[in-house]
This record gives sequence, structure tokens and C-alpha cells, in this order.
Amino acid sequence: MTTPQKGNLNLVPFVSVDNMMKLILSIGVEEMIAGIAAQIESDFKRWESFDKTARVASHSKEGVIELMPTSDGEVYGFKYVNGHPKNTKEGLQTVTAFGLLADVGTGYPLLFTEMTILTALRTAAMSAVAAKYLAPKDAKIMAMIGNGAQCEFQALAFKAICGIDTVRLYDIDPVATDKAVFNLKDSGLTVIRTNSHQECVSGADIITTCTADKQCATILTDNMVGAGQHINAIGGDCPGKTELHKDILLRSDIFVEYPPQTRVEGEIQQLKEDHPVKELWKVIAGIEQGRTSDTQITLFDSVGFAIEDFSALRYLYSAIKGTEFFDNLDMLADPDEPRDLYGMVRRAAKTGAVA
Amino acid sequence: MTTPQKGNLNLVPFVSVDNMMKLILSIGVEEMIAGIAAQIESDFKRWESFDKTARVASHSKEGVIELMPTSDGEVYGFKYVNGHPKNTKEGLQTVTAFGLLADVGTGYPLLFTEMTILTALRTAAMSAVAAKYLAPKDAKIMAMIGNGAQCEFQALAFKAICGIDTVRLYDIDPVATDKAVFNLKDSGLTVIRTNSHQECVSGADIITTCTADKQCATILTDNMVGAGQHINAIGGDCPGKTELHKDILLRSDIFVEYPPQTRVEGEIQQLKEDHPVKELWKVIAGIEQGRTSDTQITLFDSVGFAIEDFSALRYLYSAIKGTEFFDNLDMLADPDEPRDLYGMVRRAAKTGAVA
Repeated sequence: MTTPQKGNLNLVPFVSVDNMMKLILSIGVEEMIAGIAAQIESDFKRWESFDKTARVASHSKEGVIELMPTSDGEVYGFKYVNGHPKNTKEGLQTVTAFGLLADVGTGYPLLFTEMTILTALRTAAMSAVAAKYLAPKDAKIMAMIGNGAQCEFQALAFKAICGIDTVRLYDIDPVATDKAVFNLKDSGLTVIRTNSHQECVSGADIITTCTADKQCATILTDNMVGAGQHINAIGGDCPGKTELHKDILLRSDIFVEYPPQTRVEGEIQQLKEDHPVKELWKVIAGIEQGRTSDTQITLFDSVGFAIEDFSALRYLYSAIKGTEFFDNLDMLADPDEPRDLYGMVRRAAKTGAVA
Repeated sequence: MTTPQKGNLNLVPFVSVDNMMKLILSIGVEEMIAGIAAQIESDFKRWESFDKTARVASHSKEGVIELMPTSDGEVYGFKYVNGHPKNTKEGLQTVTAFGLLADVGTGYPLLFTEMTILTALRTAAMSAVAAKYLAPKDAKIMAMIGNGAQCEFQALAFKAICGIDTVRLYDIDPVATDKAVFNLKDSGLTVIRTNSHQECVSGADIITTCTADKQCATILTDNMVGAGQHINAIGGDCPGKTELHKDILLRSDIFVEYPPQTRVEGEIQQLKEDHPVKELWKVIAGIEQGRTSDTQITLFDSVGFAIEDFSALRYLYSAIKGTEFFDNLDMLADPDEPRDLYGMVRRAAKTGAVA
């Protein structure tokens, strides 16, 4: 990371929603997810070099607002993210997010960006990285229960990174499935719409659950999961919000991002506090084994962790260089003499800054 | 607080450094500090309605990056702030900051703003509010040790809110004092430069210490403080950084913002954990007494708390309405159909968003 250059100390690169979309289309969705996935793998291998804290959450009856900070000692990153399931009914996003990278040595921000779209990409990248280590060999078919905002990004990530060629879709709201079928029609994936949870998972190598209700739901029951499948459970991500029947958890080998956070927020909140789980970073780093047999059920109990956002921010910081897909934001006071903050304000009048 | 209106859901008002300066000059420095002070008093009176957590700090050998969140159940605010004492030598600010207000009901941001300048204003406003309740009656003379970035804002706050008419300045670097003398020459204050700590505090009703070294320093020794004075100690604000000799603390009635934070970060980190302190909000709310005698030494051991930033953000949110001192930032993804995030990205190509 380079530090800000003298002469433009006040300016911080900002990626707006519009510029994020332009950047994604210029790079390609699958290519960008693959780039973020590579950064996640690289950062997970050096997991121990990161400051790790559970997210700082502010809960209300309508939802939650969270700050997710982390640092590797050289670069600091954080994400602001909300989760308000009722928002959809009001025409708002359930989840919106923005994020920041800063230089640890000076505390100066390096990058400010929308992260609603970027989070969807990093979540898909993370899921596909986990499946790369955990899914059965030569997996081709993925069932997707929940066809909301995450669905297409997940489908494309698994195509790009795991070689999935077929997705089977189901949502309790057929309009959501309509949308996903339409959006994926030119993706190169075979897209099959199904009429029930049961039909959806039939014959799948991988099952992805990404529903959004803020409640303990049972999207998958025990009889629906067969030997050898990999489950990518991304919808259960806060206290009181789960998707899988407990019996599935008891039959699975469970892999998580950061145990102290997942035990509170993930599917395993249904289990005893000492139920054995494996840390995904150890699998990626070669310290522990991922899938060990063709009959084992593997479960990635994903809740989203700050290091994944850090990886996505790092990727973005590199990706925008030399492009026009960012603006410079006048975010930081930069007096000629650092101690003369008041003089800077006072002189703004004389330099014609005030009309 | 009104929630964002349909049709511009993606846009968040942003106050740049340039616009902050224009706004301050259009309102007036003293008037704006007084406005923030009124908001702080009002919010401190309803202290118990706030979510309070100590700041979330990421320490490194060069400094610290902190997130300071709070919420009153309707509005959520947080500030990002760094503290890097070595920055000044590199032509950078020791402290830079930005902040955000969001609607608790939807999680959507309402305001994003620079806070380097705004923090100087709110710190000055907070100090003056504390002195309004704690300083001796008819205080006219303030000694200021440390003439850096905070100095002039403090001087003007005490003039506007406490009726101070004279400031006595001292800094180990005479260039800093030169700057403050120059900046305050048309302020209406009598400005006296002095040649030592001892000379500076002589005859003062209020002593403000605002030095910036990241170390335990002794800016004030016991013999320099006399009966009846009020000490406004704002420079000691992190572990290992203090300004006052311990003996002064033992002779003073100590008032703090939020005890769990001040015991770690304030001057009182030098005292036992159970040393009695009073919470400033209780004085403002009329629950506890502030100054009770002419001979008492009162000390405001200020470290800065999230609610003060919240108050400043609330003030700013009102102050920019109807002005042109903000931009609209395209920060939030706003698909026509909330679940169709991918479709929004995909269609950006067709709408000509990509050149």
C-alpha cells in the first residue's frame, strides 16, 4: 500500500455505486469474483497476522447496524453494514454497506467505497472458495434455495471457481425465481426451476441456502440432505436466524470462518458451545483437512467475517488503479501547517471558497 | 429525523472539508460552537437513552484508529478517528476524522461528513459546556498550555459560552503560539503570550491543557494550580498519555464523560480504579452538583465520547438543510426491485452507464 501523496492529502478515492457497476462490467462479474476469491485465499493463508474482533453490533427491533473492522498491521479496513429484513417490503435493500481502507502508519484513509454490491461479490467469492476445498470432486449441480439478491452472484462464483454447470432454483416467492432465471439465461449455466425445497435439492452436489427471514426457519430438513453433499449455508447470520434443521448439523462436518462469531450468529447457535467445528483458514492453509471422503456431508456455516471485506477492499484498491471508475472525495482537512486548522477555516473566506 | 425519500434512495448528503469551512464561515465559528454546545447539553440531559460502548480501538506502534458508535434508538452515529502524534512531522494532521448518521429503522445512512474540523468544534463546545457548570463564577481569564490545532476553537468556545475575555498562551514551540496569537488577533479576546507554563497559569480562572505528545507528560505540576481554579484537560486521551501531575488529581473534584472509558484513557488512569469521579451528564441534568465552593479545584478530565460526536452530527444534519453546503453521494445501491441487485448491475451496461 502506498501512502497518500503530498499535494492531495485531502482527497480519498471513492467508488460510487455507479462506478462499481461500471468497474464490474469492465472487468466481468466472474472475473472480478475470481479476483476477490484469490485475494481471500491469500489473506486466509496469513489469518494469524490479522487483528480479529467480532463485529460491533447495534441491535434494534427492526434490524441491526454493524461495524466490522480488521487490520493486518499495515492496512486497516472496516465495513458498515445494516440488516433490516422488513426493508424489502418498503422498496429498500435488506442489506446496504459501505467500507473503507486506511493506512495504519498514518491513520489516513486510502479508499472509501460502496459495499452493497461488493459484499454480494465477496460473499459469493467466499462461498466458492470454501466449496473448492469442501465440495465433492467434480461437483456439477448446485441447488439454490432462496433466489434473492445473492442468488446470481453465488451461481456465477460457483461456475467460475468450482466448475458448476447446472443450478436448480427454488424460492417460496416464484417472482424471485423468475428474476433469477431471467438474469442467468445467458450465463452459460443450465438453469432449472423447481417447485419445492425437496425437488430443488434432488440430485444436487452442492446445496446453497440463502433466504433472508430474521427468524429460526427450517429451509432444509434432515431427510433432504444425502451422503456426500456439501451445504453452503449463507442465510443464517445473526442470533435467532437459522436455516437448517439441527439434525443436519449433527450429521455434518462443520467449517466456519471465526468460531467466536459463528457460535453466536451461525447455524451452530443451535448446538452446544463446545460442538467441534473446523476453521476454514486452517483448511486453506493446509493445516487441517477439508473433505476426506465421498460420503461425508460438509457444511460451510457462513456468517461473513471482516477479513473477507478486507480482501475485497484490497482487491478493489488495486483494481481501480489506472481506471476512471472512482472520484476523489475531499474528506480530509489538510492545512498547510498541520497545527493551523483554525487558520485554514478562517482563510477559506479570503480564497473565495465562500461565495 | 426523516427517512430518505423514494426516488433518491441511493444518495447520501456529504459535507466535504471545503463545504464544512463554507458552512462554518456562513454561520460563524462562535455561533456554530454555541449551536453544537446546545445540542450536547440537550443530549447529555437524556444520557440514559443512548447505547454506550467504549470506542473500538486498533492500536499500532505509530498510533491508533478508532470507531466510536452510539445510538439513541432512532438515530445511529459513528465517527472514524485516528491519532498519530508523529504525523505532524510529516506534514500530516495528528487527528483526522469523518462520521456518519444513519436511520435506525432502516439502517440507511442519512449524512456522511468530514469530522476533522467538526471534531475540533465539538471538543471546544464540550469543554465550554463543562466549564459553564464547573468554572468559578465570573471567570474571565483562561490559560492555554498547548497552542496547536485545538487552541483557537477552545478560546472562542470559552468566549462565546463562558464569557472569557482574556487568554494567556504558552507552547514549548513558540511558532505554535505565534500562529494562535495571529489567528486570535481580531477575535475580541485579549491575547497574552507568556514564556513558561508557570507564567501562563498565573492569575487564570480556567486552565486548559491541550498538548499532543503520546506519552505521560507533566504539563501541570501541583504548585501551579491554586484554589478555585477549573482545569480543562483535553490532551490526555489515550492509555499512556497524560498531562497532569497525579497530586493535582488528588486535590481536585474530577468530572468525566463516561467513567469506563475515562479510567482507561484519561488523566485518572494514574489513580486507583475506584477513585471517586462524577459524571458530567448528571451535573447537566441537575442530578449531581458541579462546583460547590469558591476554593474547590474542579477538573474536567475530557477524553471525548461518542455522544458528543452524535450531537455534532445532529447539529450538522439540521444546519445544512436548505443550504448548498453539501453534495449528494451515490453511496447506496438502489435497484428498482430490492432483490434484483444482479439485474441492476447487468442493466447498467444497457443504460449507457459504461462508456
